[in-house]
Amino acid sequence: MCLGDDPTCAAFAEHRLRYQRDMQPERRAFLKSSFVASGGAAAIAAGGLSLVSPALAQASGKAVTQSAHYHLPASAETVHWGYFSKNLKPQVEIASGDYVTIETLTHHSNDDAERMVTGDPGAESVFLWTKDKKGVARRGAGPEDAKLGPGGGLGVHICTGPVAIRGAEPGDVLEVRILDVAPRPCANPKFKGSTFGSNAAAWWGYHYDDMLEGKKREVITIYEVDASGGRDWAKAVYNFPWPGVTDPNGVLHPTIDYPGIPVDHSKTQRTYDVLKGIRVPIRPHFGTMGLAPAEADMVNSIPPSYTGGNIDNWRIGKGATMYYPVAVSGALFSVGDPHASQGDSELCGTAIECSLTGTFQFILHKKADLAGTSLEALDFPMIETKDDWVLSGFSYPNYLKDLGPDAQNAIFSKSSIDLAMRDAFRKMRSFLMHAKGLTEDEAISLMSIAVDFGITQVVDGNWGVHAIVKKAIFSERTT
Amino acid sequence: MCLGDDPTCAAFAEHRLRYQRDMQPERRAFLKSSFVASGGAAAIAAGGLSLVSPALAQASGKAVTQSAHYHLPASAETVHWGYFSKNLKPQVEIASGDYVTIETLTHHSNDDAERMVTGDPGAESVFLWTKDKKGVARRGAGPEDAKLGPGGGLGVHICTGPVAIRGAEPGDVLEVRILDVAPRPCANPKFKGSTFGSNAAAWWGYHYDDMLEGKKREVITIYEVDASGGRDWAKAVYNFPWPGVTDPNGVLHPTIDYPGIPVDHSKTQRTYDVLKGIRVPIRPHFGTMGLAPAEADMVNSIPPSYTGGNIDNWRIGKGATMYYPVAVSGALFSVGDPHASQGDSELCGTAIECSLTGTFQFILHKKADLAGTSLEALDFPMIETKDDWVLSGFSYPNYLKDLGPDAQNAIFSKSSIDLAMRDAFRKMRSFLMHAKGLTEDEAISLMSIAVDFGITQVVDGNWGVHAIVKKAIFSERTT
Repeated sequence: MCLGDDPTCAAFAEHRLRYQRDMQPERRAFLKSSFVASGGAAAIAAGGLSLVSPALAQASGKAVTQSAHYHLPASAETVHWGYFSKNLKPQVEIASGDYVTIETLTHHSNDDAERMVTGDPGAESVFLWTKDKKGVARRGAGPEDAKLGPGGGLGVHICTGPVAIRGAEPGDVLEVRILDVAPRPCANPKFKGSTFGSNAAAWWGYHYDDMLEGKKREVITIYEVDASGGRDWAKAVYNFPWPGVTDPNGVLHPTIDYPGIPVDHSKTQRTYDVLKGIRVPIRPHFGTMGLAPAEADMVNSIPPSYTGGNIDNWRIGKGATMYYPVAVSGALFSVGDPHASQGDSELCGTAIECSLTGTFQFILHKKADLAGTSLEALDFPMIETKDDWVLSGFSYPNYLKDLGPDAQNAIFSKSSIDLAMRDAFRKMRSFLMHAKGLTEDEAISLMSIAVDFGITQVVDGNWGVHAIVKKAIFSERTT
Repeated sequence: MCLGDDPTCAAFAEHRLRYQRDMQPERRAFLKSSFVASGGAAAIAAGGLSLVSPALAQASGKAVTQSAHYHLPASAETVHWGYFSKNLKPQVEIASGDYVTIETLTHHSNDDAERMVTGDPGAESVFLWTKDKKGVARRGAGPEDAKLGPGGGLGVHICTGPVAIRGAEPGDVLEVRILDVAPRPCANPKFKGSTFGSNAAAWWGYHYDDMLEGKKREVITIYEVDASGGRDWAKAVYNFPWPGVTDPNGVLHPTIDYPGIPVDHSKTQRTYDVLKGIRVPIRPHFGTMGLAPAEADMVNSIPPSYTGGNIDNWRIGKGATMYYPVAVSGALFSVGDPHASQGDSELCGTAIECSLTGTFQFILHKKADLAGTSLEALDFPMIETKDDWVLSGFSYPNYLKDLGPDAQNAIFSKSSIDLAMRDAFRKMRSFLMHAKGLTEDEAISLMSIAVDFGITQVVDGNWGVHAIVKKAIFSERTT
């Protein structure tokens, strides 16, 4: 459906007008649609093998009477940039079973504003930055008066939300189903029908201290993604070395040390002859998605942790379901860091960072109903896809607690893949024993012959290793 | 084709007799079949996207006139146990373009001799061990007079071979195509139609120092694999804790510290109620496969290195092609450590260790023909599957050279996933730059958005991380 964001829609002008009107803060309302009428356990029963047993679906469905569908656009008023916080005012409060369509913007849009901001009211409101006015002033969890700008760039992801789930309390589990993911079409008529993304090979990348040629450099590559969905691959358009950019407030950024700096392309050296003939398979997903942690008021959005956040696993896309432990009242779900594609490791520091819109269903499982189920005592973000369960290991499973008062600094110098593998191993063993009812010896054997461990990312402070087990393995089992 | 090893064959008795006759050392001959008549470049041209360009196939095919097919059975005379060596006498010498069907035996067969040895002349000759006679005395690269037995168990894999390739010299690349992989049927009439494998959760496993329950223990799980190929999953039969075993020479083995020790099942405690209802997808492959290294006369078979060996990547199965740098004259290819299934990481130390027979084609690419091709300067074992190129990174890419004179001891205490990731990153960058003609900046961007890094194994001394890139990415590119 065109929400004023699809220039190819026949009624684009009318829809755009309505969208812009709705964007005015005083008029912005969350439009309740009625496309879902059936409620209760039936509406939230899981299809196929799921961590949610029929009995748990029944219990969690009791409170659901009629589901509603909300739309949460991305604008300067609906996003928080670079941090999670339990103190944020919810953008919308929903009931268990409800649906929300949420727009997300990549924080790399200003790498090429012409292709990723211009003509798009939501993006324009977020990325607005002149000497006198900044659409979103705070970017990161750092101090207001940080040298680089408010928030200090300690955290970079534009997160839309939070969405509060009525009745969610610590100890509950929130199930989030990703029902749809669509690219946000470029709003600039010059590039009609396309969507663009940016890949920054940045100073925080794994390669940065290990380059072969010339001096250390940051390189941005702009990719084109087919917005129509007819092509399942992306292609490079051009690249340029980060030229060093002075922001509208006069602060020089010799490296990419603050998010959303508008790049002045009169000063970049573009190379168009780049990755010729290369087709990059797309895997649209949300890099950052999760709940507010309890441990601190302001939490840098970069390191992932037990409530999710910046997991950067490309399997968190359409058709996947997430299970998160709820840490604060209302759960406070936010989503951002949209990616058109990423490889396991996210080696250079970023994916194809590309704005996306997702449609989600939220189901709350109350602590009292979890006893004896696969979700009992879940203390990490769990991914369920059509075929697999994917467990997220981190160098520090809950770094905010594990690393003490200085955790938000310390995490950036203490991670290793080896530590993340240890955590993934322990989580998978625990899952097989508690959710699947195996003995430790059975779990260990099965892990060796049927579980695949992969490197999720080595660039997010708290590094990640995931463990994948196929659901079909258990198809004959009653547990 | 029944080679005297398939009790379900109508002509089994006759075939068995012929097989046993052939097994007599003085009569054993490598039966040349004539099923392949066409030679030259046409016979060795690669189908689909390959690292071998048509020009290289043409050059490498010049010497091929008529291909022959050999059969190399596994017996006490045709295997070397626990080591690679450039000094081994070849079991067969072949020309580039030839085919060899090679039987391999799992070194875990004696974990349940009734299911994996009894009635199988090849396995019986290899596993024969009484007070007075041992089919294969040396097991490992250690000293003859080692306390645990000759070879000291410093290396454990039963390797069939070596196969010498005529004309192969250091600097060449050997291409090995895995044309077929079949399970070796159980020869004990009691278990007709089945094949069995063993999974040992052993002291060298990743889990061993990190167990939840009770004291440290080694546990062996016996799995059944369908020998007919009609079922693509394995199931557990029973498990037992390693009871401590005294070998026929009176040496006590409180842990699994020497390969092929006959387990006395009157002293084991079997649990049959194990992994009930669990179906393990099978992925038949060869854990250990490669060429003799140049750096030492006797090389422990456990740590993988630049000439391959114990890579333990389940993608090395039917349909895959390996490319190895040749390190010694004749290349000296050996294969063993057959697996019915393994997960990425081989966590507990072993896979489903299960005897298999493979059919291979060998193609020699001479150094002089490699200039300017994707295989130029290849200095690691490269895996090519139908869809992917898979590069093998190790904690130490050539540990025999990297770690100096004490390398074969030192490697077991120096590995980490982090080191292996670093190596996999560098190899993939080099591959994309040299084989695919990208600049460093293009390679770095592509690696971040389209290459998946996974954990191959954390149990083989020299730990492994693999990097996977899809061939389809390059389908429009001329390089």
